[in-house]
Amino acid sequence: MALIVDKQQIFLGRFISAPGPNDLLIREGAVLVSSTNGHGRIEKTSWTVRSSDEALRLFNVGNVSVIHSPMNGFFFPGFIDTHIHAPQYPNAGIFGKSTLLDWLTTYTFPLEASIGDEGPAAESAVVANGMPAEATNGQPNKKRKVEPLSRAKTVYDKVISRTLSYGTTTASYFATISVPATNVLADLAHTKGQRAYIGRVCMDHPETCPDFYRDETPEQTIGSAIESIEHIQNLDPKGNLLAPIVTPRFAPSCQAESLARLGQLAQDRNLRVQTHISENTGEVELVKTLFPDRRSYADVYDHAGLLTDRTILAHAIHLSDNEISTIVERKSKVSHCPASNSALGSGFCPVRKLLDAGIDVSLGTDVSGGYSVSMLESVRQACLVSRQLGYVNGGEKKWNIGVTEGLWLATVGGAKCVGMEGRLGGFEEGMFWDVQEIKLDDIDSAEQGVGCRGPVDIFGWENWEERVDKWVWNGDDRNVKRVWVGGRLVHERR
Amino acid sequence: MALIVDKQQIFLGRFISAPGPNDLLIREGAVLVSSTNGHGRIEKTSWTVRSSDEALRLFNVGNVSVIHSPMNGFFFPGFIDTHIHAPQYPNAGIFGKSTLLDWLTTYTFPLEASIGDEGPAAESAVVANGMPAEATNGQPNKKRKVEPLSRAKTVYDKVISRTLSYGTTTASYFATISVPATNVLADLAHTKGQRAYIGRVCMDHPETCPDFYRDETPEQTIGSAIESIEHIQNLDPKGNLLAPIVTPRFAPSCQAESLARLGQLAQDRNLRVQTHISENTGEVELVKTLFPDRRSYADVYDHAGLLTDRTILAHAIHLSDNEISTIVERKSKVSHCPASNSALGSGFCPVRKLLDAGIDVSLGTDVSGGYSVSMLESVRQACLVSRQLGYVNGGEKKWNIGVTEGLWLATVGGAKCVGMEGRLGGFEEGMFWDVQEIKLDDIDSAEQGVGCRGPVDIFGWENWEERVDKWVWNGDDRNVKRVWVGGRLVHERR
Repeated sequence: MALIVDKQQIFLGRFISAPGPNDLLIREGAVLVSSTNGHGRIEKTSWTVRSSDEALRLFNVGNVSVIHSPMNGFFFPGFIDTHIHAPQYPNAGIFGKSTLLDWLTTYTFPLEASIGDEGPAAESAVVANGMPAEATNGQPNKKRKVEPLSRAKTVYDKVISRTLSYGTTTASYFATISVPATNVLADLAHTKGQRAYIGRVCMDHPETCPDFYRDETPEQTIGSAIESIEHIQNLDPKGNLLAPIVTPRFAPSCQAESLARLGQLAQDRNLRVQTHISENTGEVELVKTLFPDRRSYADVYDHAGLLTDRTILAHAIHLSDNEISTIVERKSKVSHCPASNSALGSGFCPVRKLLDAGIDVSLGTDVSGGYSVSMLESVRQACLVSRQLGYVNGGEKKWNIGVTEGLWLATVGGAKCVGMEGRLGGFEEGMFWDVQEIKLDDIDSAEQGVGCRGPVDIFGWENWEERVDKWVWNGDDRNVKRVWVGGRLVHERR
Repeated sequence: MALIVDKQQIFLGRFISAPGPNDLLIREGAVLVSSTNGHGRIEKTSWTVRSSDEALRLFNVGNVSVIHSPMNGFFFPGFIDTHIHAPQYPNAGIFGKSTLLDWLTTYTFPLEASIGDEGPAAESAVVANGMPAEATNGQPNKKRKVEPLSRAKTVYDKVISRTLSYGTTTASYFATISVPATNVLADLAHTKGQRAYIGRVCMDHPETCPDFYRDETPEQTIGSAIESIEHIQNLDPKGNLLAPIVTPRFAPSCQAESLARLGQLAQDRNLRVQTHISENTGEVELVKTLFPDRRSYADVYDHAGLLTDRTILAHAIHLSDNEISTIVERKSKVSHCPASNSALGSGFCPVRKLLDAGIDVSLGTDVSGGYSVSMLESVRQACLVSRQLGYVNGGEKKWNIGVTEGLWLATVGGAKCVGMEGRLGGFEEGMFWDVQEIKLDDIDSAEQGVGCRGPVDIFGWENWEERVDKWVWNGDDRNVKRVWVGGRLVHERR
């Protein structure tokens, strides 16, 4: 898709956002977006304007294109997915009855290994783990001629297209240990115009990582990290849309020395950090065994200098109060991944407790621990899991995350966790135009069974809060008509 | 849509079904369906045939149409939704942070009341409860001329079309207390060709039912029930596709006398029964207060003669071991509604325990306690909830419901619960052709963002078990290409 960049654009219609956990803001009006160097921000807003002519007059601009969202549509801030494993996308929905640790060895490591390096070695690693490289009755086609990194290109192209089509304008991606494949992911995100943080995965613990898929030494871990970081920074020197993120997979897969050197690297170069913490009770026990000198899982990271105010910690389900205090002090962020947590039976993240403690929380799809690239599905699951957590806690309502709070986590919460608070997640002046246009079908708009009718039925008597509820609970990519990042149109559904 | 009925049809391609909880059966071949009096059953099968010519020859039939499901498609038994409230469909996704009892009074009773009788009285009842009858800024349009039962026609037409489009070939519907509106639901199901059990809702307890929405007396409760039963039996005298089902809403909303008379009615006329049991802890307490002479919730129904081998009990979350034993003895069935249970924070149904005790269990969407009409969503939620239940029980794997077991519950389980075991839910000779054709998109089949591309990405290396996993976790109505009930084509996606 061509990336269309106007110097100025006016957006006209209904604007809905969730600036607070209990604050669903529904406004009609117009927004003027100005782009300098492909970097579109909201220059002016008016919540009284109702027509193109009015908008052009009020904003005092000449020949500017006006993008109008009609009656049953609205603009909504793009979703920010703060935890997604790009190479695992082909396994979305494939996890059987596994839990975290056997899921990694059965499904995840073989797939990730196959993404990076193509050729006989990777193919046999894949086949050995039960996943045939080709759909030829389970037998690998040994004569196939492999274009270098063709699998990475296919998978990464697909996952970026899919996430954009679901309205994800920013994603914090885990890649694999392969530098060339990670660079492919960065190149594709750059070309397609998604705002993205991209991390080569570091993992080098010989006891916990498979032979076919690990860094050899701490030197290689750091060297490869730097190689990938520099590629990404060369692509987008100002970091307008793309930035590297230091990505130790999780404590159990890293040698202590590597963790410390990655912490130092993040500090030296002022980089973001992402990793996992306390997802599964077995994992928590494993960390105790592997790091007997550390007080806790959080302390492993803290000791390595990896708990910073630019760190995203995925899951954070089984933290002690001491660990929560440490995370609060360090101002590190949490990515809550409810779909994944339920799918892998990991437990219930106590989101309310984390928020009350003062931790910034956001949502992640965690593909493919999570089965869906849809952040709307993450919003739904955050609501459902919170109700279940309330039930488990004797019916306490305080745990409840409602639709508005879920949307707030998926937008403003995400912005806070990627260090873009006040610049992403709303329609205020100065904010980037990272936006999705949502359209809900009118009950009379299409014959049942014909064409591309959307999944949400509006009967006409619902108010706008109820329409948003309906969108959240039954909407999907069919409702996402257009998506912009930094003012650029990056997805359109025809 | 015209209902197309061929006398004989051949279906050719891949046939997938779940005859057992751990048995995913994947076969290629052909099936001959013969229809007598619009009642299509599987006459012959062959799992060696690979072409139309072969099939025509083997089945020894002449000019018979062959319906072929291509490479990336398959036939799957239609879903059986054993618990769905048709009039609540407009509220799908609208439930706020409520739990069962306040959800009923806030959202459900006002909507249900508005379905049955249109005119000034119903309009003001609706408006009084916060739901404007028209989308005119919340003000009812008093001058609107109302066609009798127009709302019932709109809503019921929509819910049948939608459920068919998601592959639901059989549904057990709760309607409302209105006889004319319930009859509209029956008429529409009959016209559209869905297999349906339809129950006028009985509720007459003056302490728990609102004045604007209840039967006046036990006499009216029984009289109206009979009126609706006879309408449905006149529509389909042999009960080929349509049958009435005795439907006391739930114990708290019925007078003891009404329950007893409904039990007698079901026995006298050999009718199915459906109701709710033990969904919410507050509801369980309420039953204790309202029926102090009965030993338990299950005993209230048992005492009234409502626990039969043709009874479907929705939810069954908080049953005691004694209640489970009673239900086992009476051979009553359970409809597990996981999406609803999570959305309303009702708790976790111990499906494994019920199955192990010998109770037949099926799945219900429970719209609009459940937010989605999709039975595939119910399968997903059954899997997720089972993982969470395992977590809550210290990580016990025995609670796990996998994809195959979820599909088994949605098909074979449903067949057992509606008394159609061996006649619905598979591809064996003698079974009804109640089937959905599923199509998964090929990765090369469509440009991203263009047209009606499906939600499932197949990369080409997945085996068929994995493709089924992908369908279950990310599929939706876009994957349902055609749906047949009793050999009739009742839905087609173009």
